[in-house]
Amino acid sequence: MTKLSVETPAVLVDMDVAERNIRTYQDYCDRHSLRLRPHIKTHKLPFLAEYQLAQGAIGITCQKISEAEAMVAGGDMRDILITYNILGTAKISRLRALSQRIPLSVVADSIAVVDGLSDGFKSAKKPLPVLVECNTGADRCGVSTPAAAAELAAVLNASPGLRFAGLMSYPPVSSAAKVAAWLSEARDLIVAAGTKVPIISSGGSPDMWRAHEMPLATEYRIGTYVYNDRSLVARETCAFSDCALSVLATVVSVPSGNRAIIDAGSKVLTSDLLGLDGYGHVLGRPDIVIDQLSEEHGRLICDGPVNLAVGQQVRIIPNHACVVSNMLDEVILMRGDRIENPVCVAARGKVW
Amino acid sequence: MTKLSVETPAVLVDMDVAERNIRTYQDYCDRHSLRLRPHIKTHKLPFLAEYQLAQGAIGITCQKISEAEAMVAGGDMRDILITYNILGTAKISRLRALSQRIPLSVVADSIAVVDGLSDGFKSAKKPLPVLVECNTGADRCGVSTPAAAAELAAVLNASPGLRFAGLMSYPPVSSAAKVAAWLSEARDLIVAAGTKVPIISSGGSPDMWRAHEMPLATEYRIGTYVYNDRSLVARETCAFSDCALSVLATVVSVPSGNRAIIDAGSKVLTSDLLGLDGYGHVLGRPDIVIDQLSEEHGRLICDGPVNLAVGQQVRIIPNHACVVSNMLDEVILMRGDRIENPVCVAARGKVW
Repeated sequence: MTKLSVETPAVLVDMDVAERNIRTYQDYCDRHSLRLRPHIKTHKLPFLAEYQLAQGAIGITCQKISEAEAMVAGGDMRDILITYNILGTAKISRLRALSQRIPLSVVADSIAVVDGLSDGFKSAKKPLPVLVECNTGADRCGVSTPAAAAELAAVLNASPGLRFAGLMSYPPVSSAAKVAAWLSEARDLIVAAGTKVPIISSGGSPDMWRAHEMPLATEYRIGTYVYNDRSLVARETCAFSDCALSVLATVVSVPSGNRAIIDAGSKVLTSDLLGLDGYGHVLGRPDIVIDQLSEEHGRLICDGPVNLAVGQQVRIIPNHACVVSNMLDEVILMRGDRIENPVCVAARGKVW
Repeated sequence: MTKLSVETPAVLVDMDVAERNIRTYQDYCDRHSLRLRPHIKTHKLPFLAEYQLAQGAIGITCQKISEAEAMVAGGDMRDILITYNILGTAKISRLRALSQRIPLSVVADSIAVVDGLSDGFKSAKKPLPVLVECNTGADRCGVSTPAAAAELAAVLNASPGLRFAGLMSYPPVSSAAKVAAWLSEARDLIVAAGTKVPIISSGGSPDMWRAHEMPLATEYRIGTYVYNDRSLVARETCAFSDCALSVLATVVSVPSGNRAIIDAGSKVLTSDLLGLDGYGHVLGRPDIVIDQLSEEHGRLICDGPVNLAVGQQVRIIPNHACVVSNMLDEVILMRGDRIENPVCVAARGKVW
């Protein structure tokens, strides 16, 4: 590997690969008449969201109101879905302020959340579109049954300042048939009660190439595809050559023949394992396992000789790209091995 | 729990507890004539380092040059040991610039590192003190044998711009006798070659109350004791009432009787398990396990009824305090349940 004149550890983003990933998946969605609404949690960069929109995305997905604010502040965003139960007067005030600047929708899975939103929007000029979040098996948020989804849709439509906008699910991996059955039952109940279901929003990266197997969904939310990562390579969703984000690290110690220490630890690579063995893939060195991280050290071991020297750089595809782009204030944009420029990660650390 | 008027998720620091932890451990060190050099990686806050120094700490420990710069920029720091192999002309130039403002020492475990430091400091007015890092069993960095430590000490003293300052180890837990044997053998070899060993620096939080069992060490480095965390409670090093740092989160969904979802995920609590079951301890609710995190969601489950309501706050002692204080730009200082003020985490994300 050519030594890059970049201070390490650093998070690199190969723009050629990222742009190709965005175009390729947009093409897939276009072929299947699926409306793509990328989740910005992976890159947290307004200019990359603008690129996604320019390629044909219908809007973006954010998880928190502060993320949405950062994206609107940093670029031309068009339309935002916040897939989160927004609670509390401070956050709902911010939501209302932002909704006056850009089309915005949110989700809810309980009457408590609906009541809070209604309180905040009852005097607004336009009703806030709210999707009912449905638990189709991932057991995170979401109403538990199609009947409960229909009930909450009715509550939403009776709530001043709000408008039922559809169904949203964060589905479990490889369960399209089950998810489709759940959502179509909910949709039928709601339609039977006289209410339209304009949007059915599904998503998830592991199943990204099978999104068309659930034609019921009108929108697909996906984040990781822009950068990809080791977890998606392990699932055979992509290849390492499709991974746009990597961590550049320097070997700082080679204390024994089969062990080397790098200057990237959990403060860059994070402790996310996602069921994998080790904390990342060292490009060109499938024989190496990153078996241990402390905050500023990564330990590389292998059965044979590690063959690395102090001062040498290594490039690592992390297990989980989204969390890595949340660790540093900036990422370095590249084109192949050519360094372009560092950019501030505008929506980094936005957890409110 | 009284509801706090703080936007969640938030990292809270109870200053009464933090100050008590600092004073209590300084007292212990004073009783045992141990020089305490706290590691700032836990709090990353210049004003807390100043408090540690005011109570009797002899200086501070940083892991990276950028951390040391942030601490010097933000407070009156006195003396800094950077326990890291500093490599590359850019970082070594910064090291030299900083060494003109404040007494600074570093470590090295190879000739490559020593040569780089010597290149950078050979024209400096004062030699840079360098400790030899010793691998006494933790198998991270460090020379492998006492003989290798003695050899590197000799190389250091023959290197223009540098001065051998002693031995440093990041020891494995509960192995004081083995570590002492290793370090005393190295010391004896170096002394026999006619060189003084001014400093022997050991450290580690799990063994903090047994630091006096290795009187060979002249300095003790420790970070986590200022905040403590669930991992140290599990090791019986402290109690939950000694934990100064907590994460305040809000319940955003209670989708079933034994499951609740909070607005703090891995972007606040991190995925560090440290061998524990779950991602943190919910104060007052030992029956709850935080069994799953995604970036913005934490899942709380329990065998019985979860008994939480949407909108309710919970306070969590994280598994690992150091990494949590690296996640957000600011922490909220408290005194008991009284909110004092937010402070910027000056050395957050400083990985260079």
